[in-house]
Amino acid sequence: MQPAFSAADHEFMARALRLAERGLLTTTPNPRVGCVIVRDRQVVGEGWHVRAGGPHAEVHALREAGDKARGATAFVTLEPCSHHGRTPPCAETLLAAGVHRVVAAIEDPNPLVAGRGLAALRQAGVRAECGLLADAARELNIGFVSRMTRGRPWLRLKLAASLDGKTALCNGASQWLTGPAARQDGHRWRARACAILTGSGSVRADDPQLNVRGIAELPTEIVRQPLRIVVDSRLEVSPDARVLQGGGTLVVAAVTDRARSAALAELGVEVLLLPGSDGRVDLRALLAELARRGINELHVEAGFVLSGALLQAGLVDELLLYLAPCLVGDLARGMFALPQLESLAGRKQLLIRDVRLLSQDLRLLARFS
Amino acid sequence: MQPAFSAADHEFMARALRLAERGLLTTTPNPRVGCVIVRDRQVVGEGWHVRAGGPHAEVHALREAGDKARGATAFVTLEPCSHHGRTPPCAETLLAAGVHRVVAAIEDPNPLVAGRGLAALRQAGVRAECGLLADAARELNIGFVSRMTRGRPWLRLKLAASLDGKTALCNGASQWLTGPAARQDGHRWRARACAILTGSGSVRADDPQLNVRGIAELPTEIVRQPLRIVVDSRLEVSPDARVLQGGGTLVVAAVTDRARSAALAELGVEVLLLPGSDGRVDLRALLAELARRGINELHVEAGFVLSGALLQAGLVDELLLYLAPCLVGDLARGMFALPQLESLAGRKQLLIRDVRLLSQDLRLLARFS
Repeated sequence: MQPAFSAADHEFMARALRLAERGLLTTTPNPRVGCVIVRDRQVVGEGWHVRAGGPHAEVHALREAGDKARGATAFVTLEPCSHHGRTPPCAETLLAAGVHRVVAAIEDPNPLVAGRGLAALRQAGVRAECGLLADAARELNIGFVSRMTRGRPWLRLKLAASLDGKTALCNGASQWLTGPAARQDGHRWRARACAILTGSGSVRADDPQLNVRGIAELPTEIVRQPLRIVVDSRLEVSPDARVLQGGGTLVVAAVTDRARSAALAELGVEVLLLPGSDGRVDLRALLAELARRGINELHVEAGFVLSGALLQAGLVDELLLYLAPCLVGDLARGMFALPQLESLAGRKQLLIRDVRLLSQDLRLLARFS
Repeated sequence: MQPAFSAADHEFMARALRLAERGLLTTTPNPRVGCVIVRDRQVVGEGWHVRAGGPHAEVHALREAGDKARGATAFVTLEPCSHHGRTPPCAETLLAAGVHRVVAAIEDPNPLVAGRGLAALRQAGVRAECGLLADAARELNIGFVSRMTRGRPWLRLKLAASLDGKTALCNGASQWLTGPAARQDGHRWRARACAILTGSGSVRADDPQLNVRGIAELPTEIVRQPLRIVVDSRLEVSPDARVLQGGGTLVVAAVTDRARSAALAELGVEVLLLPGSDGRVDLRALLAELARRGINELHVEAGFVLSGALLQAGLVDELLLYLAPCLVGDLARGMFALPQLESLAGRKQLLIRDVRLLSQDLRLLARFS
């Protein structure tokens, strides 16, 4: 049974969530976590996890609280860890600081360790509770939760289209369909992702850089560049492609070619071979591999064919759709290559979660139900 | 130069506009007009035009005001008429009632009579002003203004599509793409129009009734049924089509056929012959003819081909687009048949005026700029 939380409890946890959100662009592959230490209804310490390898949120908050942590309550957006990782377990640190109550928003989503941190605290006599503002906490770490519970990243597919559902003309012209506000917003979504994935067709047509640019509120040196991934079944991507420059790009192929792989290796590009039964890249296996590599949120900006294939395989969790207020006609390029439907019952149904206008472009966020 | 209006003036005109709006579904072919009579900052009479042939808004308001109209100010959303029509000219009626000031939101949009009502009042010593909340007044009578100034109705094209811009499957399945809230909203837009137009392809595929149903706030007997129009270049529509039943439908063809015309005449259907140079109906001539017949707002619910043709001819003023949160894939039927573009510069640009969620469907109202 969920414990009854007071209004003050809600307020402090909401504050912890806002702190956690400050790590939105930086904590990967770790979750975004915030912590607030409260004694006598006063906040005596607060902190958030900034980046992997650095101190956890609880450590920041306890440092700020100092002696005032004794007898205090700690609000954390995720169950304190109980294992020795790169840092000592937070459950022990909270105990050592003399915290007498711990409230977590959600348990650790990893089913193998879920509940252990809270159990350890309870065994030591701490009042440990869980489930306060759980939905918001889960939402903030939707990618981490997905990786832990489903063994694959949360896949967010970004598309920009005209009102009649066209992403480009037949001759490939697509640049600047949406305006600057929408494009900048798109970079914010790229920035929070662990990796950005595209297909070789888009690389050929648009030659994207696929990096994060123009995030105003962060200094350039702090912007973490997500891993760049190109799905390139036939290993045909040109070594001159902009997405391959600067090193660290992952090319996923369904065929081997020693010469091409060597040329890519020289650029610091890793080639991953994941052939599926149809001679194309096994997309499901790719997502499993990306989860193994710590990818929480996967941002996809792909064309007609790859977007359709991901959708058809049921691997798309969320659609981030920018609609430009224009019409280009039915002969232009559509959004998704999907098999022909015989009945509307076969359509892919979504649930709209957010709609807003970015200058004159419409932004929709929708999830598959 | 526009006179300076007080805050109180704004309030009274806003009230007159709200009154005018009550005639939204009934005044056609007349404009929607409201009137408020104010003496000593008190509303002493108000009224709106209910239907053509009935009293004008000013008459209703003056009747309510009675003797209190003497020395009062009249706020009217449209310049009082100065000609003898089915009712005596309102400018004279206001004079006779002893009104000493008249404020109009806009002049009569008919360029042949614009300004005459106000001029007549001024000549008789009344302080007559114009231009208060003019945009809202024009908006409320956008169809009437269009008919008077452009000699054609305001054309609102309604479409329902999936998020990937598909209106139907290739086999024609399209019913219930959007939910009940969007469909009911669609009937409200039908209800305010003077006529509803479709094409023979849609009649064949969907057999629509094309009438107004389920407008909850009005008793069934008051709901005015708009004129129904079928663009049927080859005069092929089946006499069994539901849109032809009940009489009064207009079929517009590019060819004559005595036998078919006779069969349609028996159903009370008028056949209008308007051949264009391409062997299809001359859409521009059709709009001019509809304006001559007093059609202010023309509501179009057509398929791929006719929607594209209207758009291509530059005859669509406004897009009323319902987007259902689903995807059906690129092999389904698109929104507009348009010639292939070589450059994005050729796209049809719109300005989004309104976005809202109707249950899970998105409604967009956008205008061509």
